[in-house]
Amino acid sequence: MRIALLGGTGDIGEGLALRWAYHTRHEVIVGSRDAQKARTKAEEYGVELDSRGVEVEIGGYENAAAADRADVVVLAVPPYHVGDTVEAIAGSLDEGDILVSPATGMKRDEDGFHYHKPGAGSVTRIVADAAPDGVAVVGAFHNLAAGRLANLDADLGVDTLVVGDDDDAKGIVADLAEGIDGLRALDAGGIANAAEIEALTPLLVNVAMHNDGLHDLGVRFV
Amino acid sequence: MRIALLGGTGDIGEGLALRWAYHTRHEVIVGSRDAQKARTKAEEYGVELDSRGVEVEIGGYENAAAADRADVVVLAVPPYHVGDTVEAIAGSLDEGDILVSPATGMKRDEDGFHYHKPGAGSVTRIVADAAPDGVAVVGAFHNLAAGRLANLDADLGVDTLVVGDDDDAKGIVADLAEGIDGLRALDAGGIANAAEIEALTPLLVNVAMHNDGLHDLGVRFV
Repeated sequence: MRIALLGGTGDIGEGLALRWAYHTRHEVIVGSRDAQKARTKAEEYGVELDSRGVEVEIGGYENAAAADRADVVVLAVPPYHVGDTVEAIAGSLDEGDILVSPATGMKRDEDGFHYHKPGAGSVTRIVADAAPDGVAVVGAFHNLAAGRLANLDADLGVDTLVVGDDDDAKGIVADLAEGIDGLRALDAGGIANAAEIEALTPLLVNVAMHNDGLHDLGVRFV
Repeated sequence: MRIALLGGTGDIGEGLALRWAYHTRHEVIVGSRDAQKARTKAEEYGVELDSRGVEVEIGGYENAAAADRADVVVLAVPPYHVGDTVEAIAGSLDEGDILVSPATGMKRDEDGFHYHKPGAGSVTRIVADAAPDGVAVVGAFHNLAAGRLANLDADLGVDTLVVGDDDDAKGIVADLAEGIDGLRALDAGGIANAAEIEALTPLLVNVAMHNDGLHDLGVRFV
């Protein structure tokens, strides 16, 4: 499968790119608003993988060109950019492509991090509302610590929750997730259930901040 | 320590009462709006514990009388009753007593369970707003599966998140939590951070509903 990581130069995009390239045979494509930046980062990832004995070609392209090359497009961009990003790449999406939304809205105040629930209900819902007809939207990878994900020496041993209204698309994304060693995908239902998943991300940050020795936290449902 | 479980005849109250009586030497007191019901349930818990070789006296009282006897008062009542319950027992609380809020607001629709965020910000905040001066409020035990908690044969192996604006009170409640075998208490900061913890409870229900073999779910931060 061909997976484009838009915002693939950012932290969560980097982690997913490296993990998929390292643990699976899927083709990974890095997207950015800046094609040069995408190419540079894609090359960096290639060097990192090469140093671990994995020889793989990672392409870097401007977002729309990256989306054009992919079957699954992960919107690893800040939450306030997801709507614009979907709009910018809409023409590059084919029927049957899958959009994946890992972003979550957070705000910080003196007490800690808090979920900033969008008016639409969730960031995943914003993507669903903006997606062209025939393109399924799946929410996943919201609660992964970027640093741990990008460190291929770190064991994951965590869960990711997957939501979507198209069961086939949800199953494909769950399979992609479980292709990554140590990552278990759990079904959390439809997109209407995305807000509680997105709200878990600021909670993970708060818990990491308040407990010595805990950082880059993930979650296991047991 | 003397711990009153108001709503101690309900599912989460039952679980905490049994666990504290079984795993610790704290005195457990069951409270209910109906004193007779409290006595009956307290007796049932005593029989259950006796069958496991633990001989312990559990008292059952009307909520205010139960609170009057306790140092720590757990509001194991439905979220729409917490405000009234605090009001009803306010005269029975002494300075230095601690109120513990485990409740969370949920609503269910065709998609699943959703967090019903109170106007005050969280259920824990409702309790804090209603608590008399000198009585500290701590949020804890929001994300425990009641059935698993009440089954003394079940291993817990889960975390509970503790929030509060009074560090001493928060520490006391964390210690009470960790007195229960298999329960780890993690600090999640102040009461302002309670909403994301409460929102985790409907998510646990959704995940249990959508994944075969998962039920009575708890969470581990790893």
